[in-house]
Amino acid sequence: METKEKILFQALKLFNQFGTKDISTNHIAKATGISPGNLYYHFRNKEEIIRFLYQKMREEIGFEDLALPETLCDMMAYCKYVATVWWRYRFLKKELVILMQKDPLLQREVQQDTKMQYEKLLQLMEHLMEKGCIVPLTEEMKHHLANTIALYSNFWILFLQTFGEDVSQTMALDVSKEVSKALLPYLSDKAVKELNKCEGV
Amino acid sequence: METKEKILFQALKLFNQFGTKDISTNHIAKATGISPGNLYYHFRNKEEIIRFLYQKMREEIGFEDLALPETLCDMMAYCKYVATVWWRYRFLKKELVILMQKDPLLQREVQQDTKMQYEKLLQLMEHLMEKGCIVPLTEEMKHHLANTIALYSNFWILFLQTFGEDVSQTMALDVSKEVSKALLPYLSDKAVKELNKCEGV
Repeated sequence: METKEKILFQALKLFNQFGTKDISTNHIAKATGISPGNLYYHFRNKEEIIRFLYQKMREEIGFEDLALPETLCDMMAYCKYVATVWWRYRFLKKELVILMQKDPLLQREVQQDTKMQYEKLLQLMEHLMEKGCIVPLTEEMKHHLANTIALYSNFWILFLQTFGEDVSQTMALDVSKEVSKALLPYLSDKAVKELNKCEGV
Repeated sequence: METKEKILFQALKLFNQFGTKDISTNHIAKATGISPGNLYYHFRNKEEIIRFLYQKMREEIGFEDLALPETLCDMMAYCKYVATVWWRYRFLKKELVILMQKDPLLQREVQQDTKMQYEKLLQLMEHLMEKGCIVPLTEEMKHHLANTIALYSNFWILFLQTFGEDVSQTMALDVSKEVSKALLPYLSDKAVKELNKCEGV
């Protein structure tokens, strides 16, 4: 692994375990087994490391370039995949609001992504309607479902945290089940049958 | 108005307009027309002012002691009322995650309230089922609906903010419409008719 990759790997591990507040670039350098000077050769500061990790999460999710799913099973499998990526980068899900306030560059990226994600969700609704997977929806209901799915996507882990208990991986991954339950009343009979046959979902 | 009330009134105005980060106790004292010393006679620090405002919001919402609604119209009217209280204390909705991290006392209060709110939502589902307003739900679906309503309640304003545009009052108050749309597929025919006749909802 390149040094840069090693730094990101250790930073992610430390941020997930202790949060970003108590972790300095010195802690990250030490965990990587390099000098602070060497770390600064690769990253200007902690904020830059966080933005890189955000970019990596974004790439792994690949939302932007993703083709709309051909089947409901494809869609649900992708939902589950995304939830595991979020879990791997869980400090971002827990702290994103705080990190955005501290770093205007990150804030701008997140805002652009949120808009893009919302457009994609509206397209997805259209697509599912065209394929006969969900019943015809009014514009209003299309927006409501996109709002609900986006809320679950962006705030589920944070929401679990407001109960004050440790968020387990199982609880975090349940987000895909919640999304499918939100869609359930709008699925066509054909789609419900299809969903019951999906493997591993 | 008592000095203490005046301080809280001015603090709320400033926090809503500029956020808590850029507002000091000195700013609040100046806006109230009192000396910083006089402010410290009433409040130990900014955190204490914020906790008092959180308590006031809580009291105005009155969730804890609220009887379960007798009709769907009552429920929707209460939803709208709560949304206006949230709007009046909107800095708390926008910054709560950040403020909780800074103040363990506030964090504890919010966590207790979140649990209490969730229990109330589950009771509300039961109550609506008993009154024949919503169709019989499985335990799983009851929890899903409680999750969805709690997510909208706690994160709607923050969610609107992640799009990067100013959140208007109209957008913020739409949360009650979203909640009723989330319930819509589970309403009985009788309840849908009742809802259409509600005044001012």
